[in-house]
Amino acid sequence: MQSEILSYINSPKDLRKLSIDQLPQLATELREFIIDIISKKEGHLGASLGVIELTIALHYVFNTPEALLVWDVGHQAYGHKILTERRAVFHTNRELNGISGFPKRSESIYDTFGVGHSSTSISAALGMALSSQLKGDDQKQHIAVIGDASIASGMAFEGLNHAGVTDANLLVILNDNAIGIDPSIGALKNYLTAVKEGKNPKQNNIIKSLNFDYSGPIDGHDLPKLILELERLKKVKGPKFLHVITTKGKGLQLAEKDQVKYHAPGKFDAKTGEIHLKDESHLPPKFQDVFGHTLVELATTNEKIIGITPAMPSGSSMKYMMDAFPKRAFDVGIAEQHAVTLAAGMATQGMVVFCTIYSTFIQRAYDQVIHDVALQNLPVIFCVDRAGLVGEDGATHHGVFDIAFLNCIPNLIIASPKDEIELRNMMFTASQGLDHPIAIRYPRGRGEIIAWQKPFEKIEIGQLKEIQKGSKIAIFSTGTIGNNVTKALATIENSNLFSHYHFPFIKPLNEIEIKSIISLHQQIITIEDGAIKGGFGEQINSIITKNNLKKPCINLGIPDFFIEQGTVLELQQICKIDVQSLIQLFNIIQHD
Amino acid sequence: MQSEILSYINSPKDLRKLSIDQLPQLATELREFIIDIISKKEGHLGASLGVIELTIALHYVFNTPEALLVWDVGHQAYGHKILTERRAVFHTNRELNGISGFPKRSESIYDTFGVGHSSTSISAALGMALSSQLKGDDQKQHIAVIGDASIASGMAFEGLNHAGVTDANLLVILNDNAIGIDPSIGALKNYLTAVKEGKNPKQNNIIKSLNFDYSGPIDGHDLPKLILELERLKKVKGPKFLHVITTKGKGLQLAEKDQVKYHAPGKFDAKTGEIHLKDESHLPPKFQDVFGHTLVELATTNEKIIGITPAMPSGSSMKYMMDAFPKRAFDVGIAEQHAVTLAAGMATQGMVVFCTIYSTFIQRAYDQVIHDVALQNLPVIFCVDRAGLVGEDGATHHGVFDIAFLNCIPNLIIASPKDEIELRNMMFTASQGLDHPIAIRYPRGRGEIIAWQKPFEKIEIGQLKEIQKGSKIAIFSTGTIGNNVTKALATIENSNLFSHYHFPFIKPLNEIEIKSIISLHQQIITIEDGAIKGGFGEQINSIITKNNLKKPCINLGIPDFFIEQGTVLELQQICKIDVQSLIQLFNIIQHD
Repeated sequence: MQSEILSYINSPKDLRKLSIDQLPQLATELREFIIDIISKKEGHLGASLGVIELTIALHYVFNTPEALLVWDVGHQAYGHKILTERRAVFHTNRELNGISGFPKRSESIYDTFGVGHSSTSISAALGMALSSQLKGDDQKQHIAVIGDASIASGMAFEGLNHAGVTDANLLVILNDNAIGIDPSIGALKNYLTAVKEGKNPKQNNIIKSLNFDYSGPIDGHDLPKLILELERLKKVKGPKFLHVITTKGKGLQLAEKDQVKYHAPGKFDAKTGEIHLKDESHLPPKFQDVFGHTLVELATTNEKIIGITPAMPSGSSMKYMMDAFPKRAFDVGIAEQHAVTLAAGMATQGMVVFCTIYSTFIQRAYDQVIHDVALQNLPVIFCVDRAGLVGEDGATHHGVFDIAFLNCIPNLIIASPKDEIELRNMMFTASQGLDHPIAIRYPRGRGEIIAWQKPFEKIEIGQLKEIQKGSKIAIFSTGTIGNNVTKALATIENSNLFSHYHFPFIKPLNEIEIKSIISLHQQIITIEDGAIKGGFGEQINSIITKNNLKKPCINLGIPDFFIEQGTVLELQQICKIDVQSLIQLFNIIQHD
Repeated sequence: MQSEILSYINSPKDLRKLSIDQLPQLATELREFIIDIISKKEGHLGASLGVIELTIALHYVFNTPEALLVWDVGHQAYGHKILTERRAVFHTNRELNGISGFPKRSESIYDTFGVGHSSTSISAALGMALSSQLKGDDQKQHIAVIGDASIASGMAFEGLNHAGVTDANLLVILNDNAIGIDPSIGALKNYLTAVKEGKNPKQNNIIKSLNFDYSGPIDGHDLPKLILELERLKKVKGPKFLHVITTKGKGLQLAEKDQVKYHAPGKFDAKTGEIHLKDESHLPPKFQDVFGHTLVELATTNEKIIGITPAMPSGSSMKYMMDAFPKRAFDVGIAEQHAVTLAAGMATQGMVVFCTIYSTFIQRAYDQVIHDVALQNLPVIFCVDRAGLVGEDGATHHGVFDIAFLNCIPNLIIASPKDEIELRNMMFTASQGLDHPIAIRYPRGRGEIIAWQKPFEKIEIGQLKEIQKGSKIAIFSTGTIGNNVTKALATIENSNLFSHYHFPFIKPLNEIEIKSIISLHQQIITIEDGAIKGGFGEQINSIITKNNLKKPCINLGIPDFFIEQGTVLELQQICKIDVQSLIQLFNIIQHD
C-alpha cells in the first residue's frame, strides 16, 4: 500500500500541519490502512470506516489531548488510535498484550475515558466539562461522539437531560448511521430518520427541547463541511449538539452493502472485501445457534413463547426467532433495563419469555432482575449469553461476574450447561414452566458436540452429575469449563484418584448430596468460568464450614482482578483454568 | 369522620355505580380517610393526595382489574388501594404482616405489577399490552401512571422509545406535579414546565416525536374533565399519552406548601396538618446527617470535593452540601446510571467525588460501577446509604444485596462503619486519596453516639478491630449490626468465652490476621446486615477452607428470601440478628 501522508502522521500535531485539501487523501489512506490490517487480523470494521472523516476533522479542529474527546462504545475508534501515536502498534489490536480494541485510559493520553459498553460518553464528558468549569477553565473543549443506537439507550437520555440544564462546554456529536451492530430500532430512530430525510421542517425538536444548541444534519463524509461546522461550534458556549450522517462501512463497497456482516467480518480480502469463508460444517455449533434454533423449535409448539433481545439479534442468534415468528420476537435496542421489565410485564400475562442478554450487559439490568422479576417470582427465562471469558473484546466484555451477582438474588435458579445438549434441555425444561425465574449461562462460541439435536429431556432442577468416580479428590465443575477437567483427567496418571461432578445448577444446590460427596473425599477442588469471589466455589466452601466437614477446598476461576484481552485459551492460562494448568495442579495435588 | 360515600365503596364496581357529580364528594372523603390514617400511622402522604381525582377517574372509566393499571413507584397508590378492596386493612399499611406501602401482586388482583423503584411502569405495561395483542385481545386497556420525576429516568425513556414503534394499546399518563421526593430536575422537567405554562405552542413535541398520540396538559383535579378525556382516550388505538397537571399534597394546605416535608411527614395533626415535632436533640444523629455535615466539613478545606445524588438530596442529606457549595453538589434526578458515570468522568479530572446512592438504587448503576469506575480504578467514593434492612418500605427497598454484588468487583474497597465516628473517619480517609474506588455502606436512621463530631483520624484500609477477647468462640461482625453483638455479649453469662472482632472493611480482608484469629478459636460466627449468600461471612468461610483451618462457621445475616416490611427490629427478629436472638444463640453455642 502506498502511503503518501499517513506515514508522516504520528499524532494530531502532525495532522494539524496539513492543509484542508490534503485531508481527503489522508482519509483514503487511513481507510486503506484499517482495511489492510483488519482484513488479516480481524476486528471491528464498519464502525471505524464510517467515522474516518469525523475522526480526522475532530483531531484537526480540536486541540486534543487538551480537548477531551470521548468515543461512545469505542469500536469506531480505530482511526482515532492510529492518528494518536498508535499506528505502529495497531496490528496488535485485540491481542494479548497488544492494544485494546476500545479506547483505554491506561493506553494513551488521547483515550480520555475507557469504553466498551454503550451510552456512557455523554455522562463521562459532562463530568469532565463540569470539572473544567469548576476549575475555571472555560476554554476547554469536551466532546462526546455517540451513535444513533447508543443514544437511544436510557443512560444517554439521562446524560442529555442533565447536560441541558448546565452551561457546561459540552459538544455531543450524533454519529447517525442508522445502525448499531444490528439496525437501530425505536421511535427515536424513526424520528432521526425523518429529520435526515428533511421530513421534519423544525429539525430535531427532541434535542432542542432538551435545551441543546442543535445543528445538522450534515454529511459526515464531507471533510470541509465538517471542519467548518466544528470550527463554528468550538466557539459556541454551553451544551451543543451536532447531528452527523455517516455510512457504516464507508469506502468498502461490500461493507456498505451488508453492514451487519461487516461490523466485525473476520478475515477478508482487503481489495474486494470478500469474506474468507471457512467450511465450518464439520464443526460443533455455536452455543448461540443452539439457543436460536432451539428457541424456534420450542416456539413452534408453544405459542406463548416470546423472545426478547436488547440489540443483539445477530450476536445472540435471536434472529432465527425473529425470522420464524416476527410478532413474538422483540429487538428492543440497547435497552437492557427495559428488556427485562418488558419480559416481567409479559410474564404477568402468562407468556413464556426468553430474555437473552450477554452476561456483561445484564449488569445494566441488575435492578430489574431483582426488583421486577425475582421479587415477584415471575418465571422469566434469562439466557445469559457470552458468560465467562469472551476473548478479544477484553475487560469490558468478559461475562465473569454473573454468578456472583445473581446468586444472592432469592427465587432465582442459576443454570450452567456443560454442552449443547444440556443447554437445549435446560431451555426445554424452563419452557415447560418453572415456578421461578431462571438464568441459563453459556459461553461465547462453539461447543464440542456435533450431533446436538437430540430429543428434548426434562432436567431435574438442582441435580448434579457424576462424571467420574475416584477415591481421594473431588472436582466440582459447573458449565463448559468442566470439559477442561475431563480433558486434564484423561491425560494424567492416577486419574482414578479423582472424582468429577458436573453441576448443571449453581442454584439451588443439593446440600445433602454435596455433603455426602465431600465426606467421601480428602480434598475438594471447584472450577468455574466466573469470578471466584461470590462464585459457585464459595458456595461449596460455605457448605463445608457450615457443616464442619473439615475439608480443604481449592477454588479455581477468575481471580480478583480485571482480565484483559487475548484468546480465550491465553486468558484461561492467566487464570490457570486451561487444560495444561489443570494437569499440573492435578499432578501436584494427588501427592499432597 | 363522616363518610357518606366512601364507606359504601368496596371495589371499583361500587365506584362505577356512582354518578359523576358524586365523585368530588368521594374525592374529599378519600382524602380525609388517607389523612386521618397517615396522620396517626405515618407513611407517604403527598403523592397519594395529589392523584385522588386521577385514581377515581381511572377506576371509574376503565374496567379494572380487567383493564391493567400500573402505578409507577407506587407510593401514590393509597387511594387506589383503598378503592380496591383494602379500605378496611389500610390502617395496617407498611406494618409487619399488613398491607404493603406499594402495589404488590400477591396482595391484590388490582395490583398488576409490583413497584417501589421508579420508572418501570411503561416497560411493564407495554409488556402486558403486547401480550394482549398476541392473544388477540384488542379491547384490553393498559395504563401506566408515571410522575414527572420518574419519566426523566433513562429506563422510562427506553420504554417510550419502544412503545412508540408498536401499535400496542398503551396509555401513558404523566402525573406532572413538578416534584419527586425532592423537586424534579433536568432539561425535560424545564420543557414540561414550559408546556404547562403554555410557552410551547406545539405542545409536547418530545412525546409526539416518539410517535405517541399526545393530549394535555389537563387539570388533574378536575374530575369531569379527567373522565371525559379518559373516555376519549379509551377509544384511541395504539400508544397514547395524557399529560395531567396535579398538585402534590392537594387538599392539605401545609402539604401543598411544603411538598418535600410532606412526602412522608411522620405523624401530624389531621386537621391542621401540623407535624408533631418531637424533641430529638438528645438523640444520636442520623447517619445521613453525619454524612451530610461531614461532607461539608471536608469540602470546606478541599475544593476538589464534589457531591452527587440521584434525586435524594433530602433523604441522603446531600442537601447540606447543596446549600453550602451549590456549584459543587449535583442532584441529577432519578438517574443512577448517569450519576455514577458522571462521577467517573469527574474523577478523571482529579475531582474527589462523593457519589451518594441508596443501596437498593445502586443496583440501577451496577454496570457503571464495574465498567466506568472500578475497571478504570477511578477513586470515586460511593456512600451507599440505607444499606441493610430499611424497615417499613419493605422488600423493594432493603439494601441487602450490596455486599454480595460489590464484593466480586476488582479494585473496589468496601467499608462498613460500626458507628458515626467511623463513618466520618472513613469519609475523611477516602477524601485524602485512595488509589481505588471505595463503597462505604451505612444504614438508614440513627446511630448510637451523641458526641460524634470528633477530630478526623485516618483509618488503615483493611484493618480489623478487636472489641473483646475471649477464649472459645470468635464473632466477626461488620457494620452497625456489630452493636447488637456487643449488647448481647453484655447480657450473657460466660461472655469471656467470646471474642468479638469488628471489620470496618469487608474488602480487602487481612487474611493473615484472620487466619491467626480463627486458629485460636473453636467456633466462628459471622454477622452482617446483608445477604448471607455472597456476603462477608462467606469470605470468612473461604479463608477457612482455602487454608484448611478445619473450623465450623455460622453465618448470620439476611437469609435467601425476600424480607417484607416491618420495623427494623421485627425484621431483624425474622433474620435472627436482633439482640435477643443473638443472646439465645450465644447461650446455646457456648455449651457445644
